[in-house]
Amino acid sequence: MSDIAVILPDGSELSVPADATVEDAAYEIGPGLGKDTVAGVVDGELVDKAAPLHDGARLEIVTDQSEEYLDVLRHSAAHVFAQALQRLHPGAKLAIGPPTDDGFYYDVTGVDLDESDFPEIESEMEDIVEADYPIERLEVPREEALESFEDNRFKREILEEEAAGEDPVSFYEQDDWRDLCKGPHVESTGEIGAVKLMSISSAYWRGDEDNDQLTRVYGTAFESEAELTEFLELREEAAERDHRKIGQEMELFSIDETTGPGLPLYHPNGKRILDELADYAKSLNLEAGYDPVETPHLFRTELWKKSGHYDNYVDDMFLLDVNDEEYGLKPMNCPGHATIFDDHSWSYRDLPVRYFEDGKVYRKEQRGELSGLSRVWAFTIDDGHLFVRPDQIEAEINLIIENILTVFETFDLSAHVALATRPEKSVGSDEIWEQAESQLRDVLDSQGMDYDLEPGDGAFYGPKIDFSFEDALGRKWDGPTVQLDFNMPERFELSYTGEDNEDHRPVMIHRALYGSYERFFMVLIEHFDGKFPFWLAPEQVRILPISDENLGYAHRTKNALDDFRVEVEDRDMTIGRKIRAAHDDRVPYMVIVGGDEEEAETISVRDRFENEVNDVDPSEFREHLEAERAEKRVEPDFVDAE
Amino acid sequence: MSDIAVILPDGSELSVPADATVEDAAYEIGPGLGKDTVAGVVDGELVDKAAPLHDGARLEIVTDQSEEYLDVLRHSAAHVFAQALQRLHPGAKLAIGPPTDDGFYYDVTGVDLDESDFPEIESEMEDIVEADYPIERLEVPREEALESFEDNRFKREILEEEAAGEDPVSFYEQDDWRDLCKGPHVESTGEIGAVKLMSISSAYWRGDEDNDQLTRVYGTAFESEAELTEFLELREEAAERDHRKIGQEMELFSIDETTGPGLPLYHPNGKRILDELADYAKSLNLEAGYDPVETPHLFRTELWKKSGHYDNYVDDMFLLDVNDEEYGLKPMNCPGHATIFDDHSWSYRDLPVRYFEDGKVYRKEQRGELSGLSRVWAFTIDDGHLFVRPDQIEAEINLIIENILTVFETFDLSAHVALATRPEKSVGSDEIWEQAESQLRDVLDSQGMDYDLEPGDGAFYGPKIDFSFEDALGRKWDGPTVQLDFNMPERFELSYTGEDNEDHRPVMIHRALYGSYERFFMVLIEHFDGKFPFWLAPEQVRILPISDENLGYAHRTKNALDDFRVEVEDRDMTIGRKIRAAHDDRVPYMVIVGGDEEEAETISVRDRFENEVNDVDPSEFREHLEAERAEKRVEPDFVDAE
Repeated sequence: MSDIAVILPDGSELSVPADATVEDAAYEIGPGLGKDTVAGVVDGELVDKAAPLHDGARLEIVTDQSEEYLDVLRHSAAHVFAQALQRLHPGAKLAIGPPTDDGFYYDVTGVDLDESDFPEIESEMEDIVEADYPIERLEVPREEALESFEDNRFKREILEEEAAGEDPVSFYEQDDWRDLCKGPHVESTGEIGAVKLMSISSAYWRGDEDNDQLTRVYGTAFESEAELTEFLELREEAAERDHRKIGQEMELFSIDETTGPGLPLYHPNGKRILDELADYAKSLNLEAGYDPVETPHLFRTELWKKSGHYDNYVDDMFLLDVNDEEYGLKPMNCPGHATIFDDHSWSYRDLPVRYFEDGKVYRKEQRGELSGLSRVWAFTIDDGHLFVRPDQIEAEINLIIENILTVFETFDLSAHVALATRPEKSVGSDEIWEQAESQLRDVLDSQGMDYDLEPGDGAFYGPKIDFSFEDALGRKWDGPTVQLDFNMPERFELSYTGEDNEDHRPVMIHRALYGSYERFFMVLIEHFDGKFPFWLAPEQVRILPISDENLGYAHRTKNALDDFRVEVEDRDMTIGRKIRAAHDDRVPYMVIVGGDEEEAETISVRDRFENEVNDVDPSEFREHLEAERAEKRVEPDFVDAE
Repeated sequence: MSDIAVILPDGSELSVPADATVEDAAYEIGPGLGKDTVAGVVDGELVDKAAPLHDGARLEIVTDQSEEYLDVLRHSAAHVFAQALQRLHPGAKLAIGPPTDDGFYYDVTGVDLDESDFPEIESEMEDIVEADYPIERLEVPREEALESFEDNRFKREILEEEAAGEDPVSFYEQDDWRDLCKGPHVESTGEIGAVKLMSISSAYWRGDEDNDQLTRVYGTAFESEAELTEFLELREEAAERDHRKIGQEMELFSIDETTGPGLPLYHPNGKRILDELADYAKSLNLEAGYDPVETPHLFRTELWKKSGHYDNYVDDMFLLDVNDEEYGLKPMNCPGHATIFDDHSWSYRDLPVRYFEDGKVYRKEQRGELSGLSRVWAFTIDDGHLFVRPDQIEAEINLIIENILTVFETFDLSAHVALATRPEKSVGSDEIWEQAESQLRDVLDSQGMDYDLEPGDGAFYGPKIDFSFEDALGRKWDGPTVQLDFNMPERFELSYTGEDNEDHRPVMIHRALYGSYERFFMVLIEHFDGKFPFWLAPEQVRILPISDENLGYAHRTKNALDDFRVEVEDRDMTIGRKIRAAHDDRVPYMVIVGGDEEEAETISVRDRFENEVNDVDPSEFREHLEAERAEKRVEPDFVDAE
């Protein structure tokens, strides 16, 4: 048998026998690695260490140090759950039990469960973990497997579909319990450091409403109790900060599930924040030489066919019939911007042309997937499109990245960056792609930025840089992207007159600073826990008169701050309750005025950290607020500065 | 025969015999009026003076002093045209020939016409006018009329439909020519002071594409040559100022008839103006205590049924199917605002609550009726909705009117005001209507405003005040309205807690300052002839270097004005051509810089009236511009001020 070559993560090739497994390849690299091997990633897919290889396979070895190890461990935890369940409820039937982003689930039937059953099952799971049973892969003859699932049609269906034609089939066994499974798994149940069951919901077999309804039990698992505790704390903190909860508490937005699912209504407090965000983006855009434009929300299908969206996007589009012609709500703003560019004639000296628009787009998510502001039907992108000469790409991308990083800094968010390169299905010549990718790489390198490579993850029309926001809880959210586009200028036959007096095709760059306002707003609400920086806060200052006698002075103080969003607390409450209410409402500054202040024409200022300073000259406070707003400081710092 | 009572414009009743005509009633009022009577308006419809009356009819007598007289005269001019045409082309067949807002038309067939035929026909028309033939009403037996139209199926169709069952039927005769016609007409052809044929287009019989195509000849007529001349000059001036023409010249907007009919794309110059308008409206709204909100463009039909729009508006709505549920693009913003109001609980102390939104709405006009920015499918209203206690209506309406008049003043537009009162079909108690109408009347009176009464023209849910813009050419355009609404609060079951701790229903007020941004933008373009006030101008200052040697100084001068929209003219042209180009582009200010200016560090400033001043200190100019912008002055006045 002749050897085959597999490609390792560093790009080097390793020659192995044609019948080598992942584990064999690991031993080939080194005996230490062979011994530590838990599983492998072959061509992007997590597989058992016993999986075969093929010539040209991209191979990564998974050890307990790998990112993928947690997935493997959670998959094993799902087995432990299933074994515990069947020990306690021998009639329970198993469907599927995969790992997820933050744990695992198992779909089961034939047993009546609710969350009050969790302690008993968890205790049984812990026994199984403590017993440290080896987890072993078995090869079972197909006939025998089919017989063993005589009363479980889910597993039989898996055997007939996913495992069609396989004989023997792969099982994993621990103690006296076994499950049909392709793996991979950890070596023994004892490797699971901590398990916890989280919740129960119902699910349909294979996600299809026409199929049987199953009970889905969610759980999670970690290598250690400490990691589980940290996860649970983060989860609780995240629930506290849920933007839907804060959105209601602060009266930021609402969604009417019946008449407007996925269609948020912004109440005054939310709209004030959105307006500040829009003004900020606009000021950055104007300063960077962008021109404002506005394009319709609706175009006849002809435009979407020309742009290619009809072919690639029609299932996500809202279509409608107008006078027997088909129209579509816009899923993207680029075709509108290309239409405006195309309406003028351009010389090479006019480029780059940069358009921006806070453009509402419409994408038809499944109704069940809609969630708060993070998954909606209509959202607004702070959308920019640049039409540039090829020689201008690098400088423009540089400027865009600078602007994006400015935004991250302003909002105290950490940036994660990835470069996504040419996918298999793509348009444009090799030269242009190589040039474009190397230009993006050069820009990232010259800015000294860390970035991940996402090979093959670019758009079909060009490579892109993906930014994600890392928030105060360390969670990552999709952020703005910068995309090079050689395709749309072709489709719209865009051109400019070069120095040589010939027609040339510009390159388009798609970019945003925030991405979607809706998603960004959600990130900010949770990142700041609703305690927005002063310049964003819907109510910036609340004036608390100590008694009704000070109401007049309170209003005079408010008028002296007329350039800010100020309210006077005029409800009949003790000063203590007034302060608590202002804290609950997350107001950055409270101004407390009583008889002493009124006499001395001073104020007391308290911030939302409960710091307080007395005998403040109102005009000094006002000047501070002007600076704090202009500099977009993240935290109220008047009291600190005193 | 017993008498009947007719109601005169001043509300008084006149008793006349049951068989009295309009003319008889006029003689009843006074012999002078009887003699001068040309026609009548009965229950809002223009009728012949021989028309009968009925008990309770609202009657207005039309003399040559009435507004309606011009309609009568133009109707007679249409007859003169038809007679002249048939004199010259005996084979021409007549369909219908009514007066229009600015003249008349006649639809004809059986003759091949183009505009080169106009002089001959006009000359023949003038002969008929000069001959001063009496125009007389004839009653012709139905049979005879049908026979006379043996070869004209249009007139036969009119006899069988509009005049079904009438015998005799009414004809009008002048000289040896007669036409089936209900009138009214002037006494003789000589009353027509001036006639002119304007244009030819094609039209379908009864406007239905399935019917015969006819030739429509448009003409106009006036009492005097002087009025005709004035009309034609105004028309020419209006064509020069056509917003579609200027919109293209100044690159303000475009409309793609194929992919986006009725859906304007705003190019950078247009969007800059729209943004200034939006900022201005926002500043007025914030100052007046409005809160910003934002609502979706799309709602499920359930909302439109609840609001009543589905019943009253569905034919004009863009509907679409989403997951087998019907949704509609919003034709109005009010239901969204009511939804937000309804999401909170309110005390009587919280009211008035005032929401505003630059809200895009969608109304499906017929494609053939779309025209530039004046008739579109999607437009943005600077929409405000107030939720008020009944006792607050008057004060709030007062504030709104003040704001609207401020807008008229800012843009140098004259205001026309009308009060539209309860229509026959309406909701709400008599008391509420009377109170509301008298509140509106009191406000208008207390502001000392002239206004027309439009009885029965209110919305079905409440009375309203209609504003129209009168532009620099004296033309009137629909402007903002203020509407009282007792209906939607009922439909949405809105409430607030009163001082009595009981639930009460607020009243809604709908209002705008501009109305539709699209229509207002159109009015401004034509009103200013594209020569926008400095604060609105997309390019505010253009710097013209006398030669390329002064380019550096030109750019330094631009940088010193970095807070304004300034361009440097860097094309290779003589200074004379540069100045002409800036005039053509309607730039408010030119700054001319040559060697002398550079040496002295001064500038020359020229405005678009061709006034110029030299040796200007750049910082003095900058200060002036800041004031001119802040005060929103209509005309550039730096040179005058010097």
